[in-house]
Amino acid sequence: MLGVCYYPEHWPEEIWAEDARRMAEAGIGVVRIAEFAWARLEQAPGVFDWAWLDRAIETLAAQGLKLVLGTPTAAPPRWLVDLHPDILPVDRNGLPRLFGSRRHYTPASPAFIEATRRIVTAMAERYGNHPSVIGWQVDNEFGCDDTIFSWGPLDRAHFQNWLKVRYTTVDALNAAWGNDFWSMAVSDFAEVELPTRQVCDINPSVQLDFMRCRSDLFIDYFRLQAEIIRTHAPDRFVTHNFMGFSHTFDHFEMGRQMDVASWDSYPLGRIESLPFAEGERNRWARTGHPDVTALQHDLYRAVGRGRFWIMEQQPGPVNWANWNAVPERGMVRLWTWEALAHGAEAVVYFRWRQYRKAQEQMHAGLLRPDHAVSAGGKEAVRVAGELARLGDLPATTPAPLALVFDYTAAWVTQFQPQGKDFDYRILKLRWYEAFRRLGIDVDIVEPGASLAGYRLVLVPTLPILSEAALKAFEETDALILFGPRTGSKDENFAIPVSLPPGPLLQKRLPLKVAEVESMRPGLSAAVAGTVSGIVTRWREVLETDLDPLARFADGAPAMVAAGRFHYLAGWPEEDLLESVARHLLASAGLPVLDLPEHVRLRRRGDLTFAFNYGPDSFALPVAADKLLLGEPLLKAYDVACWRT
Amino acid sequence: MLGVCYYPEHWPEEIWAEDARRMAEAGIGVVRIAEFAWARLEQAPGVFDWAWLDRAIETLAAQGLKLVLGTPTAAPPRWLVDLHPDILPVDRNGLPRLFGSRRHYTPASPAFIEATRRIVTAMAERYGNHPSVIGWQVDNEFGCDDTIFSWGPLDRAHFQNWLKVRYTTVDALNAAWGNDFWSMAVSDFAEVELPTRQVCDINPSVQLDFMRCRSDLFIDYFRLQAEIIRTHAPDRFVTHNFMGFSHTFDHFEMGRQMDVASWDSYPLGRIESLPFAEGERNRWARTGHPDVTALQHDLYRAVGRGRFWIMEQQPGPVNWANWNAVPERGMVRLWTWEALAHGAEAVVYFRWRQYRKAQEQMHAGLLRPDHAVSAGGKEAVRVAGELARLGDLPATTPAPLALVFDYTAAWVTQFQPQGKDFDYRILKLRWYEAFRRLGIDVDIVEPGASLAGYRLVLVPTLPILSEAALKAFEETDALILFGPRTGSKDENFAIPVSLPPGPLLQKRLPLKVAEVESMRPGLSAAVAGTVSGIVTRWREVLETDLDPLARFADGAPAMVAAGRFHYLAGWPEEDLLESVARHLLASAGLPVLDLPEHVRLRRRGDLTFAFNYGPDSFALPVAADKLLLGEPLLKAYDVACWRT
Amino acid sequence: MLGVCYYPEHWPEEIWAEDARRMAEAGIGVVRIAEFAWARLEQAPGVFDWAWLDRAIETLAAQGLKLVLGTPTAAPPRWLVDLHPDILPVDRNGLPRLFGSRRHYTPASPAFIEATRRIVTAMAERYGNHPSVIGWQVDNEFGCDDTIFSWGPLDRAHFQNWLKVRYTTVDALNAAWGNDFWSMAVSDFAEVELPTRQVCDINPSVQLDFMRCRSDLFIDYFRLQAEIIRTHAPDRFVTHNFMGFSHTFDHFEMGRQMDVASWDSYPLGRIESLPFAEGERNRWARTGHPDVTALQHDLYRAVGRGRFWIMEQQPGPVNWANWNAVPERGMVRLWTWEALAHGAEAVVYFRWRQYRKAQEQMHAGLLRPDHAVSAGGKEAVRVAGELARLGDLPATTPAPLALVFDYTAAWVTQFQPQGKDFDYRILKLRWYEAFRRLGIDVDIVEPGASLAGYRLVLVPTLPILSEAALKAFEETDALILFGPRTGSKDENFAIPVSLPPGPLLQKRLPLKVAEVESMRPGLSAAVAGTVSGIVTRWREVLETDLDPLARFADGAPAMVAAGRFHYLAGWPEEDLLESVARHLLASAGLPVLDLPEHVRLRRRGDLTFAFNYGPDSFALPVAADKLLLGEPLLKAYDVACWRT
Repeated sequence: MLGVCYYPEHWPEEIWAEDARRMAEAGIGVVRIAEFAWARLEQAPGVFDWAWLDRAIETLAAQGLKLVLGTPTAAPPRWLVDLHPDILPVDRNGLPRLFGSRRHYTPASPAFIEATRRIVTAMAERYGNHPSVIGWQVDNEFGCDDTIFSWGPLDRAHFQNWLKVRYTTVDALNAAWGNDFWSMAVSDFAEVELPTRQVCDINPSVQLDFMRCRSDLFIDYFRLQAEIIRTHAPDRFVTHNFMGFSHTFDHFEMGRQMDVASWDSYPLGRIESLPFAEGERNRWARTGHPDVTALQHDLYRAVGRGRFWIMEQQPGPVNWANWNAVPERGMVRLWTWEALAHGAEAVVYFRWRQYRKAQEQMHAGLLRPDHAVSAGGKEAVRVAGELARLGDLPATTPAPLALVFDYTAAWVTQFQPQGKDFDYRILKLRWYEAFRRLGIDVDIVEPGASLAGYRLVLVPTLPILSEAALKAFEETDALILFGPRTGSKDENFAIPVSLPPGPLLQKRLPLKVAEVESMRPGLSAAVAGTVSGIVTRWREVLETDLDPLARFADGAPAMVAAGRFHYLAGWPEEDLLESVARHLLASAGLPVLDLPEHVRLRRRGDLTFAFNYGPDSFALPVAADKLLLGEPLLKAYDVACWRT
Repeated sequence: MLGVCYYPEHWPEEIWAEDARRMAEAGIGVVRIAEFAWARLEQAPGVFDWAWLDRAIETLAAQGLKLVLGTPTAAPPRWLVDLHPDILPVDRNGLPRLFGSRRHYTPASPAFIEATRRIVTAMAERYGNHPSVIGWQVDNEFGCDDTIFSWGPLDRAHFQNWLKVRYTTVDALNAAWGNDFWSMAVSDFAEVELPTRQVCDINPSVQLDFMRCRSDLFIDYFRLQAEIIRTHAPDRFVTHNFMGFSHTFDHFEMGRQMDVASWDSYPLGRIESLPFAEGERNRWARTGHPDVTALQHDLYRAVGRGRFWIMEQQPGPVNWANWNAVPERGMVRLWTWEALAHGAEAVVYFRWRQYRKAQEQMHAGLLRPDHAVSAGGKEAVRVAGELARLGDLPATTPAPLALVFDYTAAWVTQFQPQGKDFDYRILKLRWYEAFRRLGIDVDIVEPGASLAGYRLVLVPTLPILSEAALKAFEETDALILFGPRTGSKDENFAIPVSLPPGPLLQKRLPLKVAEVESMRPGLSAAVAGTVSGIVTRWREVLETDLDPLARFADGAPAMVAAGRFHYLAGWPEEDLLESVARHLLASAGLPVLDLPEHVRLRRRGDLTFAFNYGPDSFALPVAADKLLLGEPLLKAYDVACWRT
Repeated sequence: MLGVCYYPEHWPEEIWAEDARRMAEAGIGVVRIAEFAWARLEQAPGVFDWAWLDRAIETLAAQGLKLVLGTPTAAPPRWLVDLHPDILPVDRNGLPRLFGSRRHYTPASPAFIEATRRIVTAMAERYGNHPSVIGWQVDNEFGCDDTIFSWGPLDRAHFQNWLKVRYTTVDALNAAWGNDFWSMAVSDFAEVELPTRQVCDINPSVQLDFMRCRSDLFIDYFRLQAEIIRTHAPDRFVTHNFMGFSHTFDHFEMGRQMDVASWDSYPLGRIESLPFAEGERNRWARTGHPDVTALQHDLYRAVGRGRFWIMEQQPGPVNWANWNAVPERGMVRLWTWEALAHGAEAVVYFRWRQYRKAQEQMHAGLLRPDHAVSAGGKEAVRVAGELARLGDLPATTPAPLALVFDYTAAWVTQFQPQGKDFDYRILKLRWYEAFRRLGIDVDIVEPGASLAGYRLVLVPTLPILSEAALKAFEETDALILFGPRTGSKDENFAIPVSLPPGPLLQKRLPLKVAEVESMRPGLSAAVAGTVSGIVTRWREVLETDLDPLARFADGAPAMVAAGRFHYLAGWPEEDLLESVARHLLASAGLPVLDLPEHVRLRRRGDLTFAFNYGPDSFALPVAADKLLLGEPLLKAYDVACWRT
């Protein structure tokens, strides 16, 4: 199903009906509305104006469009901030941020919680049983512009209470954080400072706990809204539109509170915001990197326990990156099909029509400001036609390979990179990419979730490895590859007494990481043996009696295995990753298909999709008569689909 | 005429007479004084000490020197700041900046306005009719060190009042700014925040209005002083010394309040502060870029409606750039002649003698701290002799080509670059340079000013195009070339409903800009046709029935024309710019002269000047007997002048 | 003697005795303890708990270990900060920094002085006469994390009082600072602002005085503690552990208050923190630069007037640099021997055992967290054995060459770089390196200290040159080479009236620096004559009748001499430096030994040591039977020692 984001409050009421008609004609099935309209809906505490939204909803519903309603809490109105200034988030210097954009609140503010209850309850009461409203989006893009954090007195008190629940006594807190170090001990939870503006380094244990605390705060805030909605809107799904590659709260944990996950897909902007080399940036500037978006699809399919939407799909050039390219013609269609191939239930374009004013005026829509259909809009219409032709897509079946992704791993490596370029986003992307380049579908899995049925499991790193995670590793038959730093910390961010990979994993992998080295750009270490290539950025010195599969030049083990359990003692560069991937896939009995850098495959049930991210054609291993979409010679920026 | 800046308050009174005598001997005709001496002139509110300044003025006047008096408001004394702390500007975090340098005031402070009235009135009363005082400089370098901005409560209140005047009602404000977006609506002008410390992006409409507001505030502040001076100092000129390449207020608008414009010319420092590539920086490190200073001369000639001075001329190495080179021998003379060639009425060196102490101690003067004449001082003496030999220079006559420069264009592209390197300073410099490399003189013209008489008009960009500007384009016979983003915004920073270049220009240029792309470094698009080369940084997709003069590789129009009106759909690199320049100059019937990278010409009346910015000689197209200055083989860093 | 830093408060008391036994077995002779244990020692004002420390000390003493006690003032406990919040340092914005790391105090706080007196007195009373306690370390790493500075009201008042002592009258202050400039005059010391948050440039005279003031404040703070300790701990040495390459206070001046200097040696981290090119960083990433650590040894030998310790020696990878390499095997031993070769009395490894928790958990120790001996620990044990074999090392004898190092030179060039890359740390390192590459030992000498007996004296720069310094230059027979900017300022940071190198040095070197140029990267100036090569970064135009030893390409003097006094008019690159070094060494009659980039020598009494920082062997000019350590072919990362 395709959809659009629509803002009736931006447009004269006279054109709503025409908009609705054009949407229906274009093959749009669902419309997201209202998620920034708080000021239009509530003019003073408890004083509501629903009339305009009633009319907008009826106008859309009259064309058979289904609706997803967004709660408008991402944009608290001016009067609310004036009544309760402590709603505003506070920066690291203790200064409140100002009204005038969005996300200007901290959920640690009781006044904001009360205001949230009021608007969400009223909205859910009014529209909860509306037959056209099929789902609800809570708030909008938690964490956007670093808004998980706030450093005010309410946030400090909230953190102190959170710690009290976690540790019960200050002695336990002091022990967990190692507060004997540098005389940091506290004698009361009220003495704990937020981890900011300290004179020297900040204790990473404190940073990790503060991150957990803020993650919990937003998960609680989601749950609060979800519960209100479910009370008044039975049988509608509740979701949130996550931001991809955003790691400041635990999406898996919030996902457990949802019926469907959704995320906002902007492939081009990621080229600027991820730390790619310039050559790689230029290569994919007008297409996006072939694995970045796909990896997010696979992640949110896991977050939504099988169900996910694209709640915002880039429809053309946007406004927020350092440079904003026009997508190659065909890419809006390709991105849409790719989302569907990875299992998306709906792809909702952001937005119906480009708005001429304010912050996002340079963000394309399916319509241009002159009401004509944009280049991206034409591609959306094409997809709608193709979708109608194909009929219902089959259910997604599990991939042969699981990649374990962990938000805590992102936090640990962020607070203690030890090497400046140890970036978890890149690490997991490179592992994912290496296997996708060999034609393998990948499922993303949370640590501790069942790994039954997989042939191969990848753990790029997992610094804090729980009993539950170990159990899942033990209970699968898959080969498992652990990357560096796995098991390097206990749950309080301390090094295990038995050294990494820690007592749990050492039961299966009898080795100790005796020393670690982060390598500056330009340094590397060669690996040779069953697998070969180089490691950069990170290298570990292993102490073990296991026979190495490969060694560093100085003879130290680079990769070892104990039964199904494999360990790689460094950050693998492309050549080593490919070598490792081929070795493991062969060992697991999984056939590989060598794909060029710009082509990817993805299966959905009995359908196989192929995507061409480059200007060069690629001959697909499929006969023309099998193809449901596309041609055997997959052209530039084109899509193909066949039944297997 | 040559002049110097002199600070009697820095030197023992015993040497004033000797200084004055040496100035006169050196050929100096005018002296600027007093512009930082507030603390010496007023010791407490209304308690003045004029005696020392009286003596200084008489000492200089006794040598026949003319005087320009600076009002000292750029340096409020300590006691004034202590009496009225709200004079101090406030940073973006709401913290007042501290006393101890200069420009530590906001004109939004009523107390500062009152103090200004007092000191300026007293000074103008005392010296207004002095026969040696020929002019007045108001304050010093408005905007230096980002001082147009201040973010305090007085500044906020001033902005709110300014908005009330502009919009009358909050409904109008909300509509202009698109405040339905993200629930940003306000219900009272007092609810408007300054555009800073918002959580996410700031609305560019707000940023533009705040810039306009601050520009108006300083223009009003200039006018306040100018009116006081004119009351007490009849028939003296009033000016301000602008900073080149500083765009934080509208110099044209302030210039309308002046009799003469003036600006401070520091060619070497610009090499560091403009975003040049390192190779270009190194090439011109000891000369300055051949077009950067010239462009400012042409700009301030327009700002002063034909009349301008150099109020501060670099005389040697300075102190404030990242690196501070010694000018190549000859450059101080060259810069002086270049200013005169572009029409300057006077060139005033900063400063007479290098001061041994405080912030600017490493800034050269015509004298060294040991009282000897500096290298630059010797060049100034040489120019004085040459000037005396040439006699009065003829009046400047209009150039054949006008380049339209617009402060609002600088603001729009700053607040919404859309591509990180879309820098208006560079854009206009490159267009100017391309035509000067072909031997063409250029006038800078404000949008809306008459373009009558020009053969060619360049508009590198003009995002907000007014009725008046259109009228001027319509009423000239010149060919006109518009660059990308022209007409892309309405006066409130919204995209036109009819798409760029907007309804006004679309009357003459029937086209729509359907899409825009900003290109990261390394990306480009080839252009071929009547003109050819590449565009980088910015490309537009045009929808038009006009026959293109040139196309992009994908067939889309790159340059189109409708009669005299031409449009270029991208940021042209050097090769394309030259191609476009040759095409337009040929069409306009203007002959070109191919100059090497390091040589430039400039006409003043019937005189033609030539300047050599490089180490290689250049054979001038002129016979030796025609030369008033220099030789037919123009040597390194040399100047020539002949009558045509 | 070898030692370790030990934190009994981090470990269960059960293992203390085992730790002590293992230390003794490993050849450790001395243990530093207690320097961050304030919270464990004093639980409320005057409420002490000595019992645990008594037991720890007895446990160590029982194994014959000697002790250095650290006063714990670098880590004020939570209750103290709560009782006296004005102890906390204040950032440039006026915001207090928060509790939660270390060094969170300003000594300008009377409450902190009182608390210091209480804890230090109590500690010295208790352990002053303990037979195993041989010395005391005051506080820890003054200046770490930029903690010399604090910008609060107490700091401002302290600065104002300091100025009153220095200048007596505001007139003298105004004259010294040149406050006639920009109307900056004050009429009362209470009007002086701290040099921060001014609108434009800050007066360098103010910055220099504030730096002197803060330096004095910390020296007074050291003296306060030293006096208390000496009262109660007769015949014990008092020291402080300086940070190498840290220039924010005057280490010579503080050193005069000490019995022994000590410093903390982390060779690998410096590779990241000094502004080296990437190639040089990568080359020495796992060894440290061959001259960086050696230069600090020579400096602190001077600071301690012949006596110094390494109080913290890097034992393996650390945690605080951008990247943290594993030292090449052998380097921990090499670093230890190098310290001893340069005269260190003891080398104390930081730390005994890696702590699993808190900020420094990734910092190696001699033991790993699993209690096994680390790689570095094994090297320490080896050194202990070698040391035992060699017996007492001879006393250090003076080198033939002195390099004059001056903290004020660091401050002057920091506050007025004039060229962005004029970095005094690099300048002095490059001069030191050039002579060490020729096999010459170097003493570091404070300006004004006796230079008697030296054959050659290097002064890379000395902007403020005192009468005492001149006297020392006059009273030696050595050849002296002065570098650029020497004598360029008077004691108040003003340019001398007679121009640099100022009236004192001009008595010996009749020349004037007429102009200076800072050169951007990519620019250089060739020098030819008796010496040749290029200068970069800085060049001076000399006015002199002296015959130049070498000239710039434009004929201006590049190096001149008047008798023993030589002057170099620029920043010499490697080739010119080597040329100058060979010329001066030949003139001084000192033989040179060409060493490869990776090998260095150092004499201690009649012993000569050789160090190999690279992977390639080097044939030593010594017979095998002379060697006390090592072999004639000095292997990678190896050490040799022979008697001469």
